[in-house]
Amino acid sequence: MEPAERVIERCRQIARCSDEPGFTTRTFLSPAAREVHALVKDWMQQAGMNVRIDAAGNVRGSRNSGAPRVILGSHLDTVPHAGAFDGVLGVMLAIELADTPNVCVEVVGFSEEEGVRFGAPFLGSLALIGALDDDLLARRDARGTAVAQAIRDFGLDPTQLPEADLTHDAVAYCEFHIEQGPVLDRLGLPLAVVAGIAGQSRLTVEFEGAANHAGTTPMNLRRDALAGAAEWILAVERETGVTATVGQLEVRPGAGNVIPGFVSASLDVRHPEDAVREAAVARLLACAEQIAERRSLTTSHHHRSSNDTVLMNQRLTRMLDEALRDSGFPPHRMFSGAGHDAMILARRLPSAMLFLRSPGGISHHPDETVRAEDVAAALIAGRRFLEMLGERGV
Amino acid sequence: MEPAERVIERCRQIARCSDEPGFTTRTFLSPAAREVHALVKDWMQQAGMNVRIDAAGNVRGSRNSGAPRVILGSHLDTVPHAGAFDGVLGVMLAIELADTPNVCVEVVGFSEEEGVRFGAPFLGSLALIGALDDDLLARRDARGTAVAQAIRDFGLDPTQLPEADLTHDAVAYCEFHIEQGPVLDRLGLPLAVVAGIAGQSRLTVEFEGAANHAGTTPMNLRRDALAGAAEWILAVERETGVTATVGQLEVRPGAGNVIPGFVSASLDVRHPEDAVREAAVARLLACAEQIAERRSLTTSHHHRSSNDTVLMNQRLTRMLDEALRDSGFPPHRMFSGAGHDAMILARRLPSAMLFLRSPGGISHHPDETVRAEDVAAALIAGRRFLEMLGERGV
Repeated sequence: MEPAERVIERCRQIARCSDEPGFTTRTFLSPAAREVHALVKDWMQQAGMNVRIDAAGNVRGSRNSGAPRVILGSHLDTVPHAGAFDGVLGVMLAIELADTPNVCVEVVGFSEEEGVRFGAPFLGSLALIGALDDDLLARRDARGTAVAQAIRDFGLDPTQLPEADLTHDAVAYCEFHIEQGPVLDRLGLPLAVVAGIAGQSRLTVEFEGAANHAGTTPMNLRRDALAGAAEWILAVERETGVTATVGQLEVRPGAGNVIPGFVSASLDVRHPEDAVREAAVARLLACAEQIAERRSLTTSHHHRSSNDTVLMNQRLTRMLDEALRDSGFPPHRMFSGAGHDAMILARRLPSAMLFLRSPGGISHHPDETVRAEDVAAALIAGRRFLEMLGERGV
Repeated sequence: MEPAERVIERCRQIARCSDEPGFTTRTFLSPAAREVHALVKDWMQQAGMNVRIDAAGNVRGSRNSGAPRVILGSHLDTVPHAGAFDGVLGVMLAIELADTPNVCVEVVGFSEEEGVRFGAPFLGSLALIGALDDDLLARRDARGTAVAQAIRDFGLDPTQLPEADLTHDAVAYCEFHIEQGPVLDRLGLPLAVVAGIAGQSRLTVEFEGAANHAGTTPMNLRRDALAGAAEWILAVERETGVTATVGQLEVRPGAGNVIPGFVSASLDVRHPEDAVREAAVARLLACAEQIAERRSLTTSHHHRSSNDTVLMNQRLTRMLDEALRDSGFPPHRMFSGAGHDAMILARRLPSAMLFLRSPGGISHHPDETVRAEDVAAALIAGRRFLEMLGERGV
């Protein structure tokens, strides 16, 4: 079997390990994770690696070698009803590249990146930088089980977490991941070098008016919170330059014959430049105020989270550009609109990411797929990148 | 105590009969209904009436008399967390007017109008026109109890329903009710003669796009169902001439970081002229189609219900106009945007309604209130109306 075909076949095989029959759903250290560990361990050993499961449940394989250690990783957990390639593909590609000479490749299959079970993402990669702290270990899932207990229930020992830390010989981190968006597919390109991971602001914006009888309240005497929210949702869509989304909307009291008195909306704004993102958020909040004032509504907001842009290491991204060019692929650069483990590793190591085209831009869905030719391209470019790292160092 | 004060005091006393401590909530034949029956029966008897509870749980009081029978009624049930006057006020006013000479006033306190318990309104008034049929009797509440069983559980006998029918000497129906809207309060008027009850169309309108990652899907490649729905909600608000409301909105999948792929919206359109209402509904559905086409969404709709306008009897409304003028009040005419028992009685009897001002337009809320001077005005005008009926007939 060709390596690219083997990578895809292994992703499909892992997709059948699921917490939910008929779907691909794997949360942190669920029973399905144990099946995945057995498969990945077997494939790593076939590739000549020594394998261990660290105390955060990450699968880690590497060959003994005196060469500088390059961490190649991605995650093995999924969102509910996921596809086969988000995360897993990066681990399978890494296993194929582990035999590159002059570097010591450590392949890491992170136990947790999606944040589904505990509402906190990146539990796996945080362990590698010593940041899976007591606060996170005390977080509880919907059943009341804490992260530390979930680790113990899986047969691991949270007191051993310090041994999950990156070793001192680690010099770089690189992650292969599907784009999860339609950009490369539209451009007709197989690969892109990730310039950085776009900063993100998440807020809740509320509009309050007066709930009233839909039949007896004339149109000109209404204070309709939903009509105000609708005007603002269109303003969010028109806000140029940034990626801005209202994904969640709660309308109260929520009866067909009652004018909405209250609306709560989510706001998600992303942009590679933090100042641009922050200015857009400020404009959208001012716009909410203006709409509310004109409509005799009130508005309020809460900042849920705000993450600055994380740039990838410039020397590594240039090396990836060169590896793509050497391999005959145009070195397209793009920002990631989604978070990835590379954000976390970048706090400790020079880090880089390579995106593979997502056909149709489909992700977080059973129809998520990847082309065999793009996987082959990633293997060629990835090997060239590792060779360059072995020759030149970081 | 002045009659107007007594009417208000009795409404407040009934408001304390509730299925839910601390609130006023009375659904069809709940234990609180039994307390209300005891109070109303007592007050009716004090006013010299014979009282019976019919098989639909309506309280009915009348004096023996050979004069033409005029039914004065309204409902005794409430929405959850209601005020003290919606429905009840009409029954208390009717008791005060029962001694008008030359007419036989039958006061009816309807057991059910709001439709809360069985999702079907007007159960009480339907019994008076023989329309509380087997389909309605078989309807079940959230606990699985059928209407017929609820009647039996209360100690009544559904096989006796034919005896709840209007007697052949009934010549007219009149209902006093709070406006439940802000119109009279804005105009500074105590009373209005109801010209009719506006027709109403209720629909569900759906928009379908593509759910996608809020970070990785560029703005120009989105098919955002919520942005499309927002545009349409503003079109509903701008639709001139009719009263149109989107009160309910469901957004799926409903996560802050996912572009909405599906939105379901309620649409409620009311207007005194059926053709105007139907044309507005058609325009709004066409508008949804246009928005969907421009945005590469699809749209569909379901007609939930459609009720034509019910006009009040012209001779009776003119008589009410005259009664108001005779009593020194301007005879303002308006349409009711809400449904009332008079809609049902109008199928069998010449029917009329008189609205009392709702301060602040507040209704279906514990703050719902009524002014003593407006209650006094309704008593004066109502008595004059009944006198005219006694003198002239319908």
